[in-house]
Amino acid sequence: MAFGWIDEQADARRRAGLLRTLLPRPARTRLLDLAGNDYLGLARHPEVVEGAAAAARTWGAGATGSRLVTGTTELHSTLERELADFCGAEAALVFSSGYAANLAAVTALAPHGSLIVSDAGNHASLIDGCRLARGTVQVIGHGDTEGARKALGTHDGPAVLVCDTVFSVDGDLAPLAGYAAACREHGAGLIVDDAHGLGVVGAGGRGAAHAAGLVGADDVVVTATLSKSLGSQGGVVLGPARVVHHLVNAARTFVFDTGLAPAAAGAALAALRLLRREPWRADRVREVAAQLHARLTAAGLDAVRPQAAVVSVRAPSARAAVDWAAACRRAGLAVGCFRPPSVPDGVSRLRVTARADLTPAQIDHAVRVIGDTRP
Amino acid sequence: MAFGWIDEQADARRRAGLLRTLLPRPARTRLLDLAGNDYLGLARHPEVVEGAAAAARTWGAGATGSRLVTGTTELHSTLERELADFCGAEAALVFSSGYAANLAAVTALAPHGSLIVSDAGNHASLIDGCRLARGTVQVIGHGDTEGARKALGTHDGPAVLVCDTVFSVDGDLAPLAGYAAACREHGAGLIVDDAHGLGVVGAGGRGAAHAAGLVGADDVVVTATLSKSLGSQGGVVLGPARVVHHLVNAARTFVFDTGLAPAAAGAALAALRLLRREPWRADRVREVAAQLHARLTAAGLDAVRPQAAVVSVRAPSARAAVDWAAACRRAGLAVGCFRPPSVPDGVSRLRVTARADLTPAQIDHAVRVIGDTRP
Ligand SMILES: Cc1ncc(COP(=O)(O)O)c(C=O)c1O
Ligand SMILES: Cc1ncc(COP(=O)(O)O)c(C=O)c1O
Repeated sequence: MAFGWIDEQADARRRAGLLRTLLPRPARTRLLDLAGNDYLGLARHPEVVEGAAAAARTWGAGATGSRLVTGTTELHSTLERELADFCGAEAALVFSSGYAANLAAVTALAPHGSLIVSDAGNHASLIDGCRLARGTVQVIGHGDTEGARKALGTHDGPAVLVCDTVFSVDGDLAPLAGYAAACREHGAGLIVDDAHGLGVVGAGGRGAAHAAGLVGADDVVVTATLSKSLGSQGGVVLGPARVVHHLVNAARTFVFDTGLAPAAAGAALAALRLLRREPWRADRVREVAAQLHARLTAAGLDAVRPQAAVVSVRAPSARAAVDWAAACRRAGLAVGCFRPPSVPDGVSRLRVTARADLTPAQIDHAVRVIGDTRP
Repeated sequence: MAFGWIDEQADARRRAGLLRTLLPRPARTRLLDLAGNDYLGLARHPEVVEGAAAAARTWGAGATGSRLVTGTTELHSTLERELADFCGAEAALVFSSGYAANLAAVTALAPHGSLIVSDAGNHASLIDGCRLARGTVQVIGHGDTEGARKALGTHDGPAVLVCDTVFSVDGDLAPLAGYAAACREHGAGLIVDDAHGLGVVGAGGRGAAHAAGLVGADDVVVTATLSKSLGSQGGVVLGPARVVHHLVNAARTFVFDTGLAPAAAGAALAALRLLRREPWRADRVREVAAQLHARLTAAGLDAVRPQAAVVSVRAPSARAAVDWAAACRRAGLAVGCFRPPSVPDGVSRLRVTARADLTPAQIDHAVRVIGDTRP
């Protein structure tokens, strides 16, 4: 029977304890959320919510077509201008998701005959971008600048290096300066995904690429998402105007996709303006992450020093990680749980995310629960 | 210089008259829109707009994480249940876009060693799904059921046939019965993209797959978008529960993407409920399309008889199509303009879309403008 093979895969997942199901959440809950990526706590901020509602009223619930046909509103242009201005890029282009932005950047900037050097820790959307692109992909070790240099040295013709700035699982930073130097030595372009850096890292949350002095350069393209620190949905590519114009013409996930819904654009714009007005939010989320790390470490847990908002805590096994996360949940705390095949290195861990709006009491509670439920 | 090669491509596009730029639209305009895909005119319907606004207020501006972590709200589950119920499928799964839904369905249902038979007229998102999938792709002629039968006959092991139900450029229907028969002869699965069928074709707008009696079968998977007839953003996969559970576990654009924004889910749910209550909307859009076609044909234009909401009007050349669309716009009418490389057959055309909320006077105006500006 068609699709019959699915049952075998499901059985195998069940036997391995890896079967995942959806857990719908109610609108209000007493569960403390340290699992999501709403790093600045803006998804429910009244100004951001009103940004969504007002945009739907003014512009309609949907964009009604491709950005090239009816799907570009003045709201989209304003959001693009303000995102570019905030991050220090010449131009910006907004997509329906961060995933779509990454597919666009990699596929449109790595044509036939080009080389794509890709960090082994990259996010699924960058990896899919590499697989869809016409260029040849060479995967290098995680953070391996020497490997990058070598790979780029072997190629004649256009080349790009692709990486996350802040890796989503462990929250570690890419060696951005080393990668950029390797690219410049060889005339290659650099594409960095600042999904977990924007709003958290750098001056006023301008992102890890900005902090590394990379934004505004004519050989650097930054992608980011509107769905984490900005509390909304959507993605963006920031870079030289020539790159943005190229994506308008050549990126399939731009040309053949309906434009981002006005409500999502309006919410992201409101969040961005809020962050400009209240830059302390970015400092605060890093401070919360540092506190969580220090106190979990003091409690004897194996946590990775955070470079952004993500605090990764090692678990002895996949099963232990799942049980640990479940025990936290029973005690009123939601944390993420990453295990194979979602982790590149086979190490299972809890993924605890800081939020700028956590109170000291909530931080106490989180540290206590994670410590008390340890395997 | 990195990305220097882009300038040459841009020059080539400019010389060929194919350079595309964005044209931001204001919130209110006197331009009559027959270019978008808001087929039922619901994107600005007060109930749909309020659906978006209320959802943002209740659930926040963003979903805050992957659907597997914090991104599944009860709103998402309700939308999935009601979409499945409306279309007659066992289960449904909602994505951040129709593009993401198509990538998910094709990649997760065409594993290594499988065959994917793909109609030559398929949408870019299905094509990208084929390229990303681990199976082997065989492209057949547009609507070629005999070719489908032959391709499926040569393969041992899992196979799927992938096609649009209503093709987006010409608005023609796929030979769904023939494709389904070919699949059943060979035990293959059928994946159909009902993006332009949902809300327009079939009883009360249940879609082209429902009209063909395909929904609910254990060997058929239907994808659709929430961004056209439902006036919002997002995508959905409808099918057997085993397939939906499989996608939850295996589809990368589900697992590694932030959930659909609550406002978009709320708007789509409101639109769906409105359509259930007012099924005449689907009849009306088909009637408007038939009128447009009849009157354009009577005026001596070469228009394709519409099977859904899209009326395709042939132009003598790419340049003529561009000039024609521009002349329509100067006369107050927005129409789509498709030309290479966005058309599979090299024929340039205007793409005129019917809307359920067009008045007789607006239809008159549209027909007059298109006729008066003909090349
Ligand atoms: C590093 C990284 N890049 C891209 C994305 C995709 O962004 P989005 O969820 O907005 O599509 C994510 C997470 O979802 C991510 O963690
Ligand atoms: C046939 C078809 N499938 C899929 C899509 C993608 O849907 P979405 O724009 O909601 O991502 C589109 C149009 O955009 C389409 O025309």
